[in-house]
Amino acid sequence: MKKNALSVTRENDFAGWYQQLISEADLAEESGVRGCMVMRPWGYGIWERVQFLMDQRIKQAGHENCYFPLFIPLSYFAKEAEHVDGFAKEMAVVTHHRLMKDEEDGLVVDPDAKLEEPLVVRPTSETVIGTAFARWVQSWRDLPVMINQWANVVRWEMRTRMFLRTSEFLWQEGHTAHADREEAMEETLNILELYRSFSEEVLAMPVIAGEKPENERFPGADATYSIEAMMQDGKALQAGTSHFLGQTFSKAQNIRFQDKEGQFQFAYTTSWGTSTRLIGGVIMTHGDDDGLRVPPLIAPYQIVVIPMLRDKPEDEAVLDYCQELTKELTQLKAFDETVRVKLDKTGAKASNKRWGWVKKGAPLILEIGPRDVSEGNVSMIRRDALYKENGKLDSHILAKGDFVGQAAGLLEDIQSRLHGEASERLNSNITRGFSEFSELEAFYKENKKYPGWLEVQWCRATGEELDQIEERLKKLKLTFRNVPQDAAPVDGNCIFTGKPAVERILVGKAY
Amino acid sequence: MKKNALSVTRENDFAGWYQQLISEADLAEESGVRGCMVMRPWGYGIWERVQFLMDQRIKQAGHENCYFPLFIPLSYFAKEAEHVDGFAKEMAVVTHHRLMKDEEDGLVVDPDAKLEEPLVVRPTSETVIGTAFARWVQSWRDLPVMINQWANVVRWEMRTRMFLRTSEFLWQEGHTAHADREEAMEETLNILELYRSFSEEVLAMPVIAGEKPENERFPGADATYSIEAMMQDGKALQAGTSHFLGQTFSKAQNIRFQDKEGQFQFAYTTSWGTSTRLIGGVIMTHGDDDGLRVPPLIAPYQIVVIPMLRDKPEDEAVLDYCQELTKELTQLKAFDETVRVKLDKTGAKASNKRWGWVKKGAPLILEIGPRDVSEGNVSMIRRDALYKENGKLDSHILAKGDFVGQAAGLLEDIQSRLHGEASERLNSNITRGFSEFSELEAFYKENKKYPGWLEVQWCRATGEELDQIEERLKKLKLTFRNVPQDAAPVDGNCIFTGKPAVERILVGKAY
Repeated sequence: MKKNALSVTRENDFAGWYQQLISEADLAEESGVRGCMVMRPWGYGIWERVQFLMDQRIKQAGHENCYFPLFIPLSYFAKEAEHVDGFAKEMAVVTHHRLMKDEEDGLVVDPDAKLEEPLVVRPTSETVIGTAFARWVQSWRDLPVMINQWANVVRWEMRTRMFLRTSEFLWQEGHTAHADREEAMEETLNILELYRSFSEEVLAMPVIAGEKPENERFPGADATYSIEAMMQDGKALQAGTSHFLGQTFSKAQNIRFQDKEGQFQFAYTTSWGTSTRLIGGVIMTHGDDDGLRVPPLIAPYQIVVIPMLRDKPEDEAVLDYCQELTKELTQLKAFDETVRVKLDKTGAKASNKRWGWVKKGAPLILEIGPRDVSEGNVSMIRRDALYKENGKLDSHILAKGDFVGQAAGLLEDIQSRLHGEASERLNSNITRGFSEFSELEAFYKENKKYPGWLEVQWCRATGEELDQIEERLKKLKLTFRNVPQDAAPVDGNCIFTGKPAVERILVGKAY
Repeated sequence: MKKNALSVTRENDFAGWYQQLISEADLAEESGVRGCMVMRPWGYGIWERVQFLMDQRIKQAGHENCYFPLFIPLSYFAKEAEHVDGFAKEMAVVTHHRLMKDEEDGLVVDPDAKLEEPLVVRPTSETVIGTAFARWVQSWRDLPVMINQWANVVRWEMRTRMFLRTSEFLWQEGHTAHADREEAMEETLNILELYRSFSEEVLAMPVIAGEKPENERFPGADATYSIEAMMQDGKALQAGTSHFLGQTFSKAQNIRFQDKEGQFQFAYTTSWGTSTRLIGGVIMTHGDDDGLRVPPLIAPYQIVVIPMLRDKPEDEAVLDYCQELTKELTQLKAFDETVRVKLDKTGAKASNKRWGWVKKGAPLILEIGPRDVSEGNVSMIRRDALYKENGKLDSHILAKGDFVGQAAGLLEDIQSRLHGEASERLNSNITRGFSEFSELEAFYKENKKYPGWLEVQWCRATGEELDQIEERLKKLKLTFRNVPQDAAPVDGNCIFTGKPAVERILVGKAY
């Protein structure tokens, strides 16, 4: 029986598998600082690819990058009540600006260096960016303002999990201001679509895009939309959100302009973000019991060349051959970009290198020994199809020229196969057709370990009625995910209230 | 007489000119948060180019990017005494993790949410990265470790100035660990050379690379090297530093490995950084009384196309022509990259647009009116040579095809002319040949407004002797810059102590 590269399997312990994968694939590690991780080169390299490709799309859609301060004066938060309620519970606060040496206690905070006004480490930047917008926007001619920033943010989470929920994380946050409601709503939905297509096309991670119910909205938003991805354990991961903020923030921060008729109006604003959480999504979408499988578009290296060195005279020829091969491959283009190739010359044993790259999830791994050199071949492993049916490693021997000719196509094929596999999982794990809550309960109890998602018809409840529904779901450890944009029309009653249904909504366990 | 685009000139008020340029060129603005600025799209766009090109070189030199936590537990600082002394005076400290609503005072810091251990917002990351290195390095096989991170850091500066000295700034910090002293020193100097060539080739900003005297070292370093650029007011800007840390940090943080003989050794470490300060250097190197002149390699847009629209029927033809031109230009390559072209379709008056882009410093500005369209021409302004000798704007009319054929060459020419101009200034403003301190004093008193830099021979004083020399220089508002790598050999005595000179050192006013 085949033995996998990770000792913990998804089937036995999904959470343990996730942690082990992150460690074995050199993605990240605990930092020693509460709730903060160190992103190691392979993990950060994936993030750099995500950033690069997301940034292109954000700019293409008409946004420009800026950079706003890390610190937000406490008084900025006081302006927007709902927003405060949403974030005040979990923020890091800077109160002093100096340390000092104390004879007894060593290094301590200098009590004389207290700030006049405490500074909050940004949990998100609506307040500080809104203040800038208020300076920038005077006339309708100044609108729309469409900006984005790549930054670190801090939320003081009680329970943290690498990539999914860390005290500090990296993200992009877009902020726009518009002259009218329609344009702001169009922007909100354009970004939702940008996130959806990015997730599908770049991360090979299928998602459902839709609106969140009222009580899952961003604090202060009039509407929040999300993309939700299905992890291999059937849980949902909210992978990106786009908020229509209406005039809430423009009124709190006085983002006002004179319209064409000379009347003062408050602008309509939006905000939207995706974060390093996406990498958690990639892991739980594409990882297997041998480690990660990185979609070629975001793989820091798409092809890894391993010379099988044995401290013997023929090593030189092997290395030369590998260098030549690496050079040839580096001339190729895949996905309209130069192919990223790594020649792994480190001193480790060749089989350790192979399994190292398998765990990291490099899409194509080439192993070159003296026999490959003399026969002009390469031995190739596809990370997305590692084993033969008999459980043996599926290493393909190809003429070098043939491989070079096929490499770009193989990478594109792997990207598409990973997406296909994940799409099938998503599509086959949404259960529909519940006409009463009791049916949902029964289904859930029968399928407790792997319920997937449930799509139900409901009345778009709000306020207390919604709270009550949420309580009922919470008992089953379920939450509302979103109202899918492309769901079928309704044809019955709300399974929670019995009122006429107005839309369909997804329910599931979530990260 | 020609009237310049900025109302404050360099000659009349260099500091005022600097501030006005930053504002008029849309580079940055005060944020309302003490000492922190907002980087606006054009300023951040320049930083993105700096990042992109610097990152390539850093990776080319064998480093990988990682990301380490923003917060550093106070106890990490306590381990390295000198380092603490250098930084403890100016650090933002997080002491609480929650706000609360108080009936009387509104939103306040929740006194019950005090952290057990205060967290320092990183002023630099030697301590937290060293802790990671201690985990990563066990054997000589694990060395060298060569990493870099792009991050924000915070130093609580009393007097701030945009780009040059802000409480929060963006930078890259490289950190490496090596098995022996020689390799670590080689790395330190390789990076110094990387910074030097980057500054010259990419920023078109000539610099002098050399070693800092003992008391200007990074806290905890065995040696600090810098690149120093000469601003147009003759002051020096330290634009990048590379530190040989010896075993100071490896001993404090226990970065230990087993060598080939099985003996435990402490590693030798280095660290090095450049920051958004480089943009301040670019401004004060290349700005003129009409605003910024951005070297083409780092210009977010290298060519700006302005359609001269007049709300008339011929506007459509002008716009079509501009669109076609933009498309053609976007197919070009300059400096081995796709040329970055902006078609400015905003509703502003054409002359306002022209002067807007002049102030921003776009290298080539094209203005297209109906006559250009009918004659198949473009009207071109070179930002590096804005005026004719008679003081009139030097707008060149070229056949469209000719311009397209020349554009890449023009950009390369502008890059090189900017560098040439700045090099001449640097070279002609270093005064040598002082044989006694009194001569230096006399020179300085005669040339108080614009002394440039002085290169003197000295004895490489240390300790108290060095302190005394510094005091004498300080009275003249001068400081040591560095010991140029390629200075001429010594041939006399130290002008400060009369002892035999061992090297030459630069002295100047500095930012």
